[in-house]
Amino acid sequence: MTSTFKIKPLSNTLKEALVHKINFKTKPLGALGMLEDLALQIGQIQETLTPKISCPTLVVFAGDHGIVAEGVSPYPQEVTWQMVMNFVSGGAAINVFTKQNGWDILVVDAGVNYDFPDHLPIKNLKINYGTKNFLSEPALSEIELEKAIQAGADLVSEINQKGCNCIAFGEMGIGNTSAAAVIMSKITGLPIQDCAGKGTGLDNEGLKHKINILSTAIENHQTYNATDILRTFGGFEIAMICGAMLKAAELKMMILVDGFIVTSALLVAQAQHPNVLDYCIFAHQSDENGHAKMLNYLKAKPLLKLGMRLGEGTGAALALPLVQAAVNFLNEMASFESAGVSESL
Amino acid sequence: MTSTFKIKPLSNTLKEALVHKINFKTKPLGALGMLEDLALQIGQIQETLTPKISCPTLVVFAGDHGIVAEGVSPYPQEVTWQMVMNFVSGGAAINVFTKQNGWDILVVDAGVNYDFPDHLPIKNLKINYGTKNFLSEPALSEIELEKAIQAGADLVSEINQKGCNCIAFGEMGIGNTSAAAVIMSKITGLPIQDCAGKGTGLDNEGLKHKINILSTAIENHQTYNATDILRTFGGFEIAMICGAMLKAAELKMMILVDGFIVTSALLVAQAQHPNVLDYCIFAHQSDENGHAKMLNYLKAKPLLKLGMRLGEGTGAALALPLVQAAVNFLNEMASFESAGVSESL
Repeated sequence: MTSTFKIKPLSNTLKEALVHKINFKTKPLGALGMLEDLALQIGQIQETLTPKISCPTLVVFAGDHGIVAEGVSPYPQEVTWQMVMNFVSGGAAINVFTKQNGWDILVVDAGVNYDFPDHLPIKNLKINYGTKNFLSEPALSEIELEKAIQAGADLVSEINQKGCNCIAFGEMGIGNTSAAAVIMSKITGLPIQDCAGKGTGLDNEGLKHKINILSTAIENHQTYNATDILRTFGGFEIAMICGAMLKAAELKMMILVDGFIVTSALLVAQAQHPNVLDYCIFAHQSDENGHAKMLNYLKAKPLLKLGMRLGEGTGAALALPLVQAAVNFLNEMASFESAGVSESL
Repeated sequence: MTSTFKIKPLSNTLKEALVHKINFKTKPLGALGMLEDLALQIGQIQETLTPKISCPTLVVFAGDHGIVAEGVSPYPQEVTWQMVMNFVSGGAAINVFTKQNGWDILVVDAGVNYDFPDHLPIKNLKINYGTKNFLSEPALSEIELEKAIQAGADLVSEINQKGCNCIAFGEMGIGNTSAAAVIMSKITGLPIQDCAGKGTGLDNEGLKHKINILSTAIENHQTYNATDILRTFGGFEIAMICGAMLKAAELKMMILVDGFIVTSALLVAQAQHPNVLDYCIFAHQSDENGHAKMLNYLKAKPLLKLGMRLGEGTGAALALPLVQAAVNFLNEMASFESAGVSESL
């Protein structure tokens, strides 16, 4: 199911010309650091010396998780739908940051255990009222997984057709750090202790309990590949993000990768389509235990490290001005020649 | 001369109320990381629960350095005035980033070895045509130092009177990493090898030569306090930034601190007025050798680490959206109560 995407590696046709353009801007060689790498990557993604960011869109996928029945989160499950209502009212962190930085925001019910009133601006892609409890049974059925991946991919196609070439994903789902931690452990091979963290704020006792539950869950299931791992332990929001990322890469869009949950979806996506990483810009390093190791596994260098661990896509939302700065310096800065500035001796 | 500033420590009157407001936003406790610390600091600076950023202004001070006669930079001195012309034409990195992020930009001739045409939008505060070569004599005279500090302070007063409450400083001056490195070594007590770096792009041989020159310069002068260090090794732009920072703190403005050169000015400022640090927001960590240690000396946590080493104030210019995000979440996010979201169990 995730194997149907056709993702090309970055084109190298313009690479040399882009490097030359970057190097002859009026600045010491390499002095813009990561912004220079970013400008090169974006130029290669868009196959142009004058890239631009069009209609940046952040999609927040919300879904509930059966594993919360095991007491793995300090918050009750109802917070998932309450926070979705908060997104719709504009009161959440993601609303503030997307508004500030010029993102379009779209809120998606991927599988929340609640019926939202129809009139609200929530895209209804509900697969089910939360996943099954993966302690004892697979979180998603095969059909649910397929539907979720397809729904994520279709949504990105729609958004792309409206002119968007830069996309980010956020998530809301009480319990989803548990799902992400198990996915991480299974894909990276790291022990669950290195992957599970305090999430929204467990104490040490709570974390110990979470790790015990997740260890048992891992023992209870055999999985044979990344898709299988996603189906067994994932969430509707995680599966939709996985499909959405693969489609975005197929469409040569820039993908701003948020934190722990979103990167867990990417772990699955890249296991079958390594080229998806060529289109990824890593927005931030979350403070959630495990995210630094996830990024390290992907050899990813995040733009921001602000000690944040909020989810919703907030890290990605905050990083957009840096991505814009990379595009802008490439397009707008003078060269040594055009500015009449002497080069180094 | 730097002792005439009256800088109050941050008021704690609203501290508890600010912490309460931050903690009851719809997010896990502490989940916005450094943005929460920033919101608290800005609330305390402005003594309000609803701070705002008004007319953010970035002032780029340019000055030349006599020490370049010793071959400490790979670029010729004329690049200082050529880059000032580039600032005026809008082709430099600082133009691109200030325009993108909504800064007013002001370019100041603090002491460039060039006569700019009068009709250009360059504020003429020229103290002299470059400093003296500090290998053999003090870079500034006592009168020059006093004039430079006063000019920086007066300029900030003017800008503040126009409604600006958030200021940053940039610099341009071939040779000024040499000045900053010696200031750093003298004030922190670290050996010059830990303070001097490759600047705009010296090779290893060039760096060795630079360190030799700076070591000899240090041996050639006795200094007795921070002002003395600034006079002996500083630059006109560094002295103006020092005076500008002290006045900004006196006026309770937010100061976004840029990279290596600007932080060297702050080292001098805080040596006489430690309270200036209460008003400082550290924008980024430069890749110039020494800046990480400077920040460590000041116990400063920079917002960005992008491997940049360009100067001009570019790090500060790029950090403004993060500062704005801190202010915005404090003002705009819903509380658990107002959004009807359940708190943790």
